[in-house]
Amino acid sequence: MSTAAFLQDFHHVATIGATANNGVDRQAATPADARTRAWFARWVQDAGYALHVDGIGNMFALLEWTPGAPYVLVGSHLDSQPLGGRFDGAYGVVAALHAARRIDVAVAESGSAPAFNLAVVNWFNEEGGRFAPSVMGSSVFAGLFDEDAMLAVTDSAGTTVREALAGIGHLGSDARPTPVSYAEIHIEQGRILEREGIPIGLVDSSWYTQKLDIEVLGEQSHTGATAMADRHDALVAAAKIVLMVNDVTKDFAEEALVSSIGQLALEPNSPIVVARRVHMVADLRSGDPEIVKAARATLLRDIAELARAHDIRINVLDFDIRPIRRFPEAGLELTGKVARELGLASRRIQTMAGHDAVAMNTLVPSVMLFIPSVDGVSHCEREFSTDADMATGVDMLTRVVHKLVDGALAGDTDRCFAAAGGRG
Amino acid sequence: MSTAAFLQDFHHVATIGATANNGVDRQAATPADARTRAWFARWVQDAGYALHVDGIGNMFALLEWTPGAPYVLVGSHLDSQPLGGRFDGAYGVVAALHAARRIDVAVAESGSAPAFNLAVVNWFNEEGGRFAPSVMGSSVFAGLFDEDAMLAVTDSAGTTVREALAGIGHLGSDARPTPVSYAEIHIEQGRILEREGIPIGLVDSSWYTQKLDIEVLGEQSHTGATAMADRHDALVAAAKIVLMVNDVTKDFAEEALVSSIGQLALEPNSPIVVARRVHMVADLRSGDPEIVKAARATLLRDIAELARAHDIRINVLDFDIRPIRRFPEAGLELTGKVARELGLASRRIQTMAGHDAVAMNTLVPSVMLFIPSVDGVSHCEREFSTDADMATGVDMLTRVVHKLVDGALAGDTDRCFAAAGGRG
Repeated sequence: MSTAAFLQDFHHVATIGATANNGVDRQAATPADARTRAWFARWVQDAGYALHVDGIGNMFALLEWTPGAPYVLVGSHLDSQPLGGRFDGAYGVVAALHAARRIDVAVAESGSAPAFNLAVVNWFNEEGGRFAPSVMGSSVFAGLFDEDAMLAVTDSAGTTVREALAGIGHLGSDARPTPVSYAEIHIEQGRILEREGIPIGLVDSSWYTQKLDIEVLGEQSHTGATAMADRHDALVAAAKIVLMVNDVTKDFAEEALVSSIGQLALEPNSPIVVARRVHMVADLRSGDPEIVKAARATLLRDIAELARAHDIRINVLDFDIRPIRRFPEAGLELTGKVARELGLASRRIQTMAGHDAVAMNTLVPSVMLFIPSVDGVSHCEREFSTDADMATGVDMLTRVVHKLVDGALAGDTDRCFAAAGGRG
Repeated sequence: MSTAAFLQDFHHVATIGATANNGVDRQAATPADARTRAWFARWVQDAGYALHVDGIGNMFALLEWTPGAPYVLVGSHLDSQPLGGRFDGAYGVVAALHAARRIDVAVAESGSAPAFNLAVVNWFNEEGGRFAPSVMGSSVFAGLFDEDAMLAVTDSAGTTVREALAGIGHLGSDARPTPVSYAEIHIEQGRILEREGIPIGLVDSSWYTQKLDIEVLGEQSHTGATAMADRHDALVAAAKIVLMVNDVTKDFAEEALVSSIGQLALEPNSPIVVARRVHMVADLRSGDPEIVKAARATLLRDIAELARAHDIRINVLDFDIRPIRRFPEAGLELTGKVARELGLASRRIQTMAGHDAVAMNTLVPSVMLFIPSVDGVSHCEREFSTDADMATGVDMLTRVVHKLVDGALAGDTDRCFAAAGGRG
């Protein structure tokens, strides 16, 4: 029975890089990521499909029914955050493999080749915890990021993406399939579907997001032998910025803006030395670009004032600005129709998080589906979705992708191609 | 001319591990520390003295005039903070070597052996930036820290002290000289001598110090997809603690208390993940133990309240409590007399910072001298003392140590031996 086979595979993948509290720790190009990638490769080989690995470590399982025709791509990512959840990404890849096999069986039974071929993809480094920026592999594929620049990105130990991929034997050179459309299923990472008791979300747009790179430059001194009045403590100023970034959300309606600092490094980081430098990354997101822009303006003004008050230098740089991306209306109509055919309730929904589908949607018509997340938590070990919801999602994805290989969305141009030169 | 020889050696040592802004970076048992230690060993060899290295990496240059007699020890440390200054520690070691050579010449000229022998010491890991606790080598020598426990201490990369010392070839097994007294000269790391125009400080006591190990345990979640109200952000709570630790100094008279956080680590430290855990070390110091105790009580109360308000767990542990240590009155009288003999103004002074002399004073009668620090800054690259002040200090140290090898302080028991079982 195919639902059982899917669940068996899903729960097996969750054992790779498993943590003590039911999560996984599989940052990009680590040994745990390599083991998950080996599992993907073996599954594809056992199924009899060709495997291609491209120059940024994206893995493609190729189902070629119609030689020379372009490919519908379906997939997600097997990498995780440090101490992350076992659903984020992995669910979409395992679901895509099983959807592809079901479609392959149906194609064989029908005796006639569909309009397009099918590729299941495991995108490299969607999470970005080890190598920033996130959504790396799909953004390179979509032409949003430069491949050589991404291969030169380093982790905190100075290892480059190129070295890390070569180190696990996954710096490929295979041809990329020519895409015609893209589909992805993912957990919601929010509470809307759970609260409303709806099994399928149809993602219509992504939030506006941006990051701020903040560098606080104080003066290093002795914690024991420097009078308080003589200090220029970078950490005290940084602590005030952490609170500003948190509190700026209160200037807007509840849940209209999320804003936080998740990364911080202190130098020299010695118990008896007043900090010389603090480097932080703030992450601001909203469904309304004007809210992010207003919050950013408030923060820049308050940080400049803080620098004057503390007599220290603070450098703030914008980066990783990702505009609202709208998924094509034709795709939303397609997925809505499939849900009705399967007797499933569905609703349109925004994604606050970034996804490979958002990057792919700048290149080809893309659809993105959500299944419910218990308590809405993600990027943590207690992230959870039920077997029943996962199985429903696989059924839904299978039918959507089958329609895509049969030609749905192929002519759609309802996308913002003009934005493709920016960052995803 | 011996002052020129001293200055030449001092400024040469400042080139080892030199940084771009006139500082040095020679954390304990790093390659830069190893090069400084090699310089020390070569200097001692060239001078014709025996070199011993003990089981915790302390280096002793032995001048044995009277076989079987115990040793006056004189020295400081050649290791530094990361991006530290070139005076802190190194000045005291180079000054001690030159003082020893001058005394050796005088002894040879006099034709009669002094009461005691002399050992110049380079203590291992006074700074504690890489391996905590600080003042490690002299505290092991004084019996305040257990040697095996210290050899098992790890740096942030998991390397033990034992491995690091063995790695640079300085895990010794030589006998330690039997001490009879100890002398050390150091930069003030404060502004009192500079402000008052006094070339020599006679250290009469050390400040009361303690550290707090603070662990903030929130919940990891997605920065983009978690509503602000649902977060338990460990970094936001930690930022409030950083400010509490800074602001508690305002409860007391100006300069009565210094309090700060110099070490902080964030987990998982990913730009798009709300922090699960923040680990910090706070450092509180005062000349009055009651002030530190009152500040600690305020912080514990406020941190407990914060944990309740944020619905997260915060663990706070006391460690590295170092009581006020008084240097013996006889030593202060001795050094005051030497200053007068040399026509130098001097004053009694407290040390806010920890020093090897504070640890050694729990074992044998010890004297500690300060020379002025320009602007009072230390543990940073712009730490500075003039050549003239350094040269005056070497003259002063030479005369003091000569009196010690001739028997001064030998019978003094005006020290708190009862405290020797605690931590230095």
